[in-house]
Amino acid sequence: MFKLKNEDNGGAGARTGVLSTKMGDIETPVFMPVGTAGAVKGVTEEVLNSIGASIILGNTYHLFLRPGMEVIKKAGSLHKFISWKKPILTDSGGFQIFSLQGNSKVEEKGVEFKSHLDGSKFFLTPESVVDIQNILDSDIQMVLDNFAPNPSSHKEDKFALDITTLWARRARERFLEVGKRENMQFGIIQGGLNEDMRSESLEKLTRIGFDGYAVGGLSVGESREDFLRIISHIVPAMDPQKPHYLMGSGTPEEILFAVEKGIDMFDCVMPTRNARNGSLFTWSGKVSIKNEKHKLDLSPLDKDCGCYTCKNFSRAYLRHLYISREINSSILNSIHNLRFYLDFMQKIRYSIDSDKFLEFRDKFLFKYNKGE
Amino acid sequence: MFKLKNEDNGGAGARTGVLSTKMGDIETPVFMPVGTAGAVKGVTEEVLNSIGASIILGNTYHLFLRPGMEVIKKAGSLHKFISWKKPILTDSGGFQIFSLQGNSKVEEKGVEFKSHLDGSKFFLTPESVVDIQNILDSDIQMVLDNFAPNPSSHKEDKFALDITTLWARRARERFLEVGKRENMQFGIIQGGLNEDMRSESLEKLTRIGFDGYAVGGLSVGESREDFLRIISHIVPAMDPQKPHYLMGSGTPEEILFAVEKGIDMFDCVMPTRNARNGSLFTWSGKVSIKNEKHKLDLSPLDKDCGCYTCKNFSRAYLRHLYISREINSSILNSIHNLRFYLDFMQKIRYSIDSDKFLEFRDKFLFKYNKGE
Repeated sequence: MFKLKNEDNGGAGARTGVLSTKMGDIETPVFMPVGTAGAVKGVTEEVLNSIGASIILGNTYHLFLRPGMEVIKKAGSLHKFISWKKPILTDSGGFQIFSLQGNSKVEEKGVEFKSHLDGSKFFLTPESVVDIQNILDSDIQMVLDNFAPNPSSHKEDKFALDITTLWARRARERFLEVGKRENMQFGIIQGGLNEDMRSESLEKLTRIGFDGYAVGGLSVGESREDFLRIISHIVPAMDPQKPHYLMGSGTPEEILFAVEKGIDMFDCVMPTRNARNGSLFTWSGKVSIKNEKHKLDLSPLDKDCGCYTCKNFSRAYLRHLYISREINSSILNSIHNLRFYLDFMQKIRYSIDSDKFLEFRDKFLFKYNKGE
Repeated sequence: MFKLKNEDNGGAGARTGVLSTKMGDIETPVFMPVGTAGAVKGVTEEVLNSIGASIILGNTYHLFLRPGMEVIKKAGSLHKFISWKKPILTDSGGFQIFSLQGNSKVEEKGVEFKSHLDGSKFFLTPESVVDIQNILDSDIQMVLDNFAPNPSSHKEDKFALDITTLWARRARERFLEVGKRENMQFGIIQGGLNEDMRSESLEKLTRIGFDGYAVGGLSVGESREDFLRIISHIVPAMDPQKPHYLMGSGTPEEILFAVEKGIDMFDCVMPTRNARNGSLFTWSGKVSIKNEKHKLDLSPLDKDCGCYTCKNFSRAYLRHLYISREINSSILNSIHNLRFYLDFMQKIRYSIDSDKFLEFRDKFLFKYNKGE
């Protein structure tokens, strides 16, 4: 169940809300740390709880391959298997159809995958993806979708859109037939960079009727202009009473833009992946920790951050760990980057509740872009 | 300052004590987690504190090369640089002379190293190692020593022994001249697998006079018999009022054996390195977590362990993380293995204080060797 809390009256479409699930409430707009294979890289569930994560992401395709459904079934749910006592959203495998191009074959019935682990072939259908997510017992379940690689022809986009719509209908039927009613299922809007197709996709999904709607097929290499154009076009057209999820985005700037248009949910590997590559987010802009200039810098990474890393360690030490390829570099950097994202969302929510989102956005961007 | 607490009256040489340093007291026998480059791999200082670590190890050679002394000097100490508020023991670089064979050249004056990082050459002397450790401000500082690779000739052993003695004298002089009096300096007994040489080494070091004595040059590929023979020979001959440190050992069995002979301090990369390789210590023996038999096993790794990993996760999940090469595998496994070692030492101390060390040893080994 989704309940709107406040719509920013300062002229923007930004809104706060509460998404209630069987595993707890989620304050939106929310950022969901990505735990593809049942683990958010570099941080334990204890750390995730301490930095304020309210929901994490898992991936149906990856979890289906490994560890497989037998052990999840035995454990009772993905939550129990990974010891995470809060909500989980599971992506469907749609993104893997895209990212494993050449190792997947889409047809009307479903999609044939060659496992990225051992090359073995298997077949996923919109229905089987629902069944798998039922075993995972994920609180929010994404339908199997399809989208064309960018750049794509009108024909490719149309094919992907039609498949997505067809699959969405079948997935919804299956969910209503066998899914647990306490869980939610979200439809995924496709249509590439074509506004008409995006509208068509949204319209058809809305007619099927989902518990929430996601914008898929973005943040996959399109230009910034195209990203902004599609978000601006489609989000304001989405049912305002339902949660809006932008899949796989993004940078702080992208998140601000999407929140302004009315997006409620985000996920992205950026904070954790960048952390492992020594690229760190701060309230004064991005920091490349390997940079020579940090060598003797005993100040914290971000004096405005209250995370474990910033409260205890210096830039010089973080640089040393990174240069020395110590595993603790990934750990400390991941704690910080995730905390930054979660604090960022918290401040966004607060600004919306105070009807000051645009002011927050401008202040944030000024400091963030100015750098140190 | 070292104060003996209890000598087990059950016939064994095992003893408990308290080693007091400027950064706090250390209950012995103690296991010191290894943080070669200023980080115990896979665990933060917060975790180290929570599992009961009372002292950690750093390595002078590694820290001298990277991050270098400039930043440590600026930070004030190694403790401050790495945010560790308890004692630190620093190894000297003697082991690196051994392990970087071909990249080091020993002469009377000192040792020429070729950096394992960039091949650059530099020269360490017993005196400069003291100076470096003064900058690190380590609470317990090991002298620069030398030992021959195993197997070695009598002549090689004798050369290494003489160098070690010569260097020890010069190191002690330097330490008394420039070292901070609140820190301690330990001598290192060498002499290979030759009992007479070991005795000679101990005698000469004792005449120089150190705050503690270490047995070096073991756990480097010698047979178990040789290891046990040298320990049995030399440890009972060491000044009972001074702390006895066995460098670089060992397995739980080796620790039990050495404690029985009167060793007070241990360090070893085994718990953390094995953790990263999926080899886990439990009270019922070693467990290879990648083993197929754990695939559906939802029980904890060790039901007798109270660590974060065992209290929250199953063998099946730990196996999944290991097989999936998730960084969280190293994190959770390291927490467990270190906690196992620290709990093990705590139980050893308790058994000695109760004059029941041999009983504890036998019970432990029975269960540990029986396996699951």
